[in-house]
Amino acid sequence: MSSLDALFSPCSIAVVGASERPGSVARAVMENLRCFPGDIYPVNPRRAEVCGLPAWPSLGGIGRPVDLAVIITPAASVAGVMAECALAGVKAVVVISAGFKETGAAGEQMEREILAEARRAGIRLIGPNCLGVMVPSAGMNATFATRMAVPGRVAFLSQSGALGTAILDLSVTEGTGLSAFVSVGSMVDVGWGDLIRYFGDDPGTDSIVLYMESVGDATTFLAAAREVAVRKPMVVIKVGRTAAAARAAASHTGAMTGSDAVFEAAMTQAGVLRVETIEELFDMAEVLAKQPLPRGPRLGIVTNAGGPGALAVDALVARGGEVAVLSPETLARLDGVLPPHWSHGDPVDVLGDADAARFSQAVQWVAEDDGVDGVLVVLTPQSMTDPVAVAAAVAAVGRVPGKPLLCSWMGGDAVRDGRRVLNDAGISTHDYPDAAARVFAAMWDRRCRLAWLEETAAGAAGAAGGCEIPDEAQRVLREARADGRLLLTEAESKHILAAWGIPVVETVVAVTMSEAVAAAERFGYPVVLKLHSVTITHKSDVGGVRLHLETAEAVRRAWGEVEAAVAPADFGGVSVQRMVASDGVELILGAVIDPQFGVVMLFGAGGTMVEVWQDRVLALPPLTRETARRWMAGPKIHRALLGIRGRPAADLEALTDVMVRLSAMMLAMPSLVEVDLNPVVATARGVMVLDARMVLAPPVELRPVVA
Amino acid sequence: MSSLDALFSPCSIAVVGASERPGSVARAVMENLRCFPGDIYPVNPRRAEVCGLPAWPSLGGIGRPVDLAVIITPAASVAGVMAECALAGVKAVVVISAGFKETGAAGEQMEREILAEARRAGIRLIGPNCLGVMVPSAGMNATFATRMAVPGRVAFLSQSGALGTAILDLSVTEGTGLSAFVSVGSMVDVGWGDLIRYFGDDPGTDSIVLYMESVGDATTFLAAAREVAVRKPMVVIKVGRTAAAARAAASHTGAMTGSDAVFEAAMTQAGVLRVETIEELFDMAEVLAKQPLPRGPRLGIVTNAGGPGALAVDALVARGGEVAVLSPETLARLDGVLPPHWSHGDPVDVLGDADAARFSQAVQWVAEDDGVDGVLVVLTPQSMTDPVAVAAAVAAVGRVPGKPLLCSWMGGDAVRDGRRVLNDAGISTHDYPDAAARVFAAMWDRRCRLAWLEETAAGAAGAAGGCEIPDEAQRVLREARADGRLLLTEAESKHILAAWGIPVVETVVAVTMSEAVAAAERFGYPVVLKLHSVTITHKSDVGGVRLHLETAEAVRRAWGEVEAAVAPADFGGVSVQRMVASDGVELILGAVIDPQFGVVMLFGAGGTMVEVWQDRVLALPPLTRETARRWMAGPKIHRALLGIRGRPAADLEALTDVMVRLSAMMLAMPSLVEVDLNPVVATARGVMVLDARMVLAPPVELRPVVA
Repeated sequence: MSSLDALFSPCSIAVVGASERPGSVARAVMENLRCFPGDIYPVNPRRAEVCGLPAWPSLGGIGRPVDLAVIITPAASVAGVMAECALAGVKAVVVISAGFKETGAAGEQMEREILAEARRAGIRLIGPNCLGVMVPSAGMNATFATRMAVPGRVAFLSQSGALGTAILDLSVTEGTGLSAFVSVGSMVDVGWGDLIRYFGDDPGTDSIVLYMESVGDATTFLAAAREVAVRKPMVVIKVGRTAAAARAAASHTGAMTGSDAVFEAAMTQAGVLRVETIEELFDMAEVLAKQPLPRGPRLGIVTNAGGPGALAVDALVARGGEVAVLSPETLARLDGVLPPHWSHGDPVDVLGDADAARFSQAVQWVAEDDGVDGVLVVLTPQSMTDPVAVAAAVAAVGRVPGKPLLCSWMGGDAVRDGRRVLNDAGISTHDYPDAAARVFAAMWDRRCRLAWLEETAAGAAGAAGGCEIPDEAQRVLREARADGRLLLTEAESKHILAAWGIPVVETVVAVTMSEAVAAAERFGYPVVLKLHSVTITHKSDVGGVRLHLETAEAVRRAWGEVEAAVAPADFGGVSVQRMVASDGVELILGAVIDPQFGVVMLFGAGGTMVEVWQDRVLALPPLTRETARRWMAGPKIHRALLGIRGRPAADLEALTDVMVRLSAMMLAMPSLVEVDLNPVVATARGVMVLDARMVLAPPVELRPVVA
Repeated sequence: MSSLDALFSPCSIAVVGASERPGSVARAVMENLRCFPGDIYPVNPRRAEVCGLPAWPSLGGIGRPVDLAVIITPAASVAGVMAECALAGVKAVVVISAGFKETGAAGEQMEREILAEARRAGIRLIGPNCLGVMVPSAGMNATFATRMAVPGRVAFLSQSGALGTAILDLSVTEGTGLSAFVSVGSMVDVGWGDLIRYFGDDPGTDSIVLYMESVGDATTFLAAAREVAVRKPMVVIKVGRTAAAARAAASHTGAMTGSDAVFEAAMTQAGVLRVETIEELFDMAEVLAKQPLPRGPRLGIVTNAGGPGALAVDALVARGGEVAVLSPETLARLDGVLPPHWSHGDPVDVLGDADAARFSQAVQWVAEDDGVDGVLVVLTPQSMTDPVAVAAAVAAVGRVPGKPLLCSWMGGDAVRDGRRVLNDAGISTHDYPDAAARVFAAMWDRRCRLAWLEETAAGAAGAAGGCEIPDEAQRVLREARADGRLLLTEAESKHILAAWGIPVVETVVAVTMSEAVAAAERFGYPVVLKLHSVTITHKSDVGGVRLHLETAEAVRRAWGEVEAAVAPADFGGVSVQRMVASDGVELILGAVIDPQFGVVMLFGAGGTMVEVWQDRVLALPPLTRETARRWMAGPKIHRALLGIRGRPAADLEALTDVMVRLSAMMLAMPSLVEVDLNPVVATARGVMVLDARMVLAPPVELRPVVA
């Protein structure tokens, strides 16, 4: 028995704080548990009976094994109840009671106490401040929601209880079945990682849907998601895309929400599908659970009207899908059953007077075409149309192994019964054909991601292994620390990069004008002069960069200009380097430490226009060569790397190499909290870092650990 | 009586081709017309009675005035029926019959014939190949759709009959009322422009919704849209966003679909709201018809659950809306009625146990706050929630003049009755709070566009006035024409620009190496050499551009390299110009002729990376200074124009001037079919065109006009 089995398949449930008071949460829980086939023990010292069941004065008095205790007593009493649970041998607990962290410091302290009790006794705990737990197929509804979900194969994990009630109501109305509903509450103990692993292993669950306000323990969550997403579709909606929304969520749960772009990158790498609307959340979860993933992007569309077909094509192509090209054989077969003026291609317009036989015959032949990876059937209720008969006929013939079948019966009352016929046959329906086409494109996207996940999983494990820190890099860090500096100079940053084997343009620090000229003469003209400063990091912004210097005189003039541009305290001389020819593509590579997800790497268009284009992608290391190559293709600047306007392609292998080395460096040197390489110039001849800045973490102060 | 009144408010209707045959289109029309309060005359020479009404052998035999004839006879007979209509004094005609243009050349010829008959008799005609026309408030359903829409204030014009049937069915189910439904069919006579003007003037119509596959007569459509969109919201969904979808639409209607980006630009300038999904189409139409436009972007959200509120904030901010900052007075009032741990800000979380009084009191106070431009109320069905009572209370207090009120009662069966209460009170409801927030943001967007439309309408009228073509520009065109060339050289293109007062860098054509050196000496170094060719237009791509030439020797070497790069026939010497300092922002300005919308101007990021960034906006001239300024702010490169990294802002007035002059030039010189100015460099010192290419229209051959 897994440690969470007592939560989701208990044989006996105690309800601590059970009550009959009308309108109370406790009464709602008691009523919802009425269908539970196992033993129910209401615990209430002031009542002999609750809701028709004998009540027990205390957990200890029950005298029989209790798998799960549902606690609905006031917050201040919960720690005490937890201690009783430990004595009574309760295996798992759901704390529905609110009034903890979300109410302030005192509540937070109570939360720590109940967690300590749970840990001491080895009890797993969901909540506090949650709606409860529901397992429809087991007849178990340990929530105070007003409805029980219909049994099904989607596990729904929600960080908002109220949103959960709305979704439950909707899923009952629309017949979307759930394998479990878990309101996670404050997640003091059982969190995303535990639940994802549990339902990843649950044979009754085909897909997992998450409504998320905060990530919580990101490492555990990511590890579980990476492991499970390969086997089962995971779909997440996360609030906090915008800073304003993050504030709203924070004031609601008292939890911090991390940077949205980092979350997005983490989901992409873990193979989790992120959606933006609640509607998409359930559309996707249902389809992914019911239908196979397509093996290609080509959708065959069979419709009894041209307009809806065209709308579907628009949506399909916009999301990366393709319109199928039907084979001559399929076209000939269709010619045999369709009226002469059918559309003679995909979308297949079977025309407004199509009956069930014509419609379903066309669906079958399109589905059987080797050039078709999935089928969308669109019906509009025209005067000759029988939506129910068409639904039955399509359900009978349309499923070809390995190819998803999506249906959109458009309209209201006229198509309601037809939709039900399709749903009963296990075919999910979509209100609009464009929405269905988007779902197909998302399914193809998921297939692509899975392939990527699988092929890189092994490599990533290898790449994560600890690298030796080069001595030279260690030395630079030590010296800066000894100086009490957190900001490394350009020259120091380049030393570290060079020590890791990342090509940098050779840079000499000159503290006098004549040293600068000497360096320039050694490199050969033209050269670049840049401000050397231990205080100023964005040199361009203060006029601290002089390019295209062709003579010693120009170097001397530039020295004077740079010196004049800043305060004496900020001027530590200049760095001199040769002027690299401007025929390359300017890139940015960087890394920062995210408080939740750790090291986050950045790649995109570099140079002074970096803020204008904002053309960048994020990734979590370790990067293998394979992931680096895929990552590289993300931003628009990738197109320039492939060669434009007669310019040859850049050396992508060299760029891959730099990315992998940067990933290894960031993992090996955790004291680097910010690394910014801009510009990095890529040409056919290689890749070179022209400018670099690095920031160190402040020294760690040892503080007493708060228990 | 407007020329279309006979179509939409006829006193008498003849049905030519009336029939009782079960399942026939004609029978469906007869049954649908049963509720029409005026006179119905079935015309069928083989029957004495059709569907209980006396039938007439011919239109001429009726002997009483016929306002509208609905024609359902075979295609080949329709021209003859039209002739009868003319003799019988019929004022308007709806041709439902199919089998015209969409079947090929013969059908197209028949279509021309029925149009000729209509024009001859002054009869306005809708169709052919359409579903018909419906005016619910008049009890008129001259379609073969299976349902009559409920009366309302949205006019729905659809180019797909079948999609129309689905939407009608849905609108009945959801209670969305229509003032009219028009299936436009092939639009041989009555087109978008006529219908938009008609419903623009119709007092029973508050908003106009279009499902569009082809624009048809773009000039008429645009003129009508510009005129009406200022007064009434217009929402359009147009298929053909993608080339593949355009193909699907073309095979369906036989109509051409223009470039989608041009259509988008035209809609933006006309003030028409374009949506991407059918769901949005009706959401927007309904809300715009029922609710005032907000005066600002600040949405107040009142919710009984935090999660849905956070989702709404995400959607709101992503679309340009803002979370309202509540005044201290409002916060104090809310403190008085809400439990202590309410959210103390927007979104206002009234908490899960909120009853109708608490909920509606919060809504009222938020709505009354001067810092709130609109209110969204979100309800989730929690155990203590009464969705109907809250709906009634909110409907009673929530409407503040000038501020839209949107509601999202989340869930299925549990909230159905509550939604109905809101709908009955004239408040539109949305299934999901994020969708409602997007609608609010779109309403604010529309308000902004209206302001823009109004302030520029007067200026545009002035700017459209014909400009004199400068003599020098005429001369260049004449010479190229005399040479039989359609492609102008860089030097010629710059001459034309200069003649229009657009600053160009001075460029000298050198046909010998020594001429090139002499020109360079005159300009002073560094200079640029470019291939001069009457055949090759993209000079960079063939290695025909040499920058940064510092000496006479470098000029001679560059001459040799450019000459060697192309075939002798393509080499006409070089153009020489001084090298402009590279501290400016590289832009592209251009114009092409769109087959439907005429001149289309383009502005965006220029240089060799133009295809990488694809950072561009389109506009239809004439541009006033005001529209040019707004247009300029569209692409990302605008941020660079405002000054980045210590670089001063570019001279935006000079750029505005160039845009307005280019607009005037394009309108005055219609033989310029392609103009490409790239790069145009903008600095604080002004704007200068560094390279230019122009293409002329082929000479017009006089062909006999086909009648």
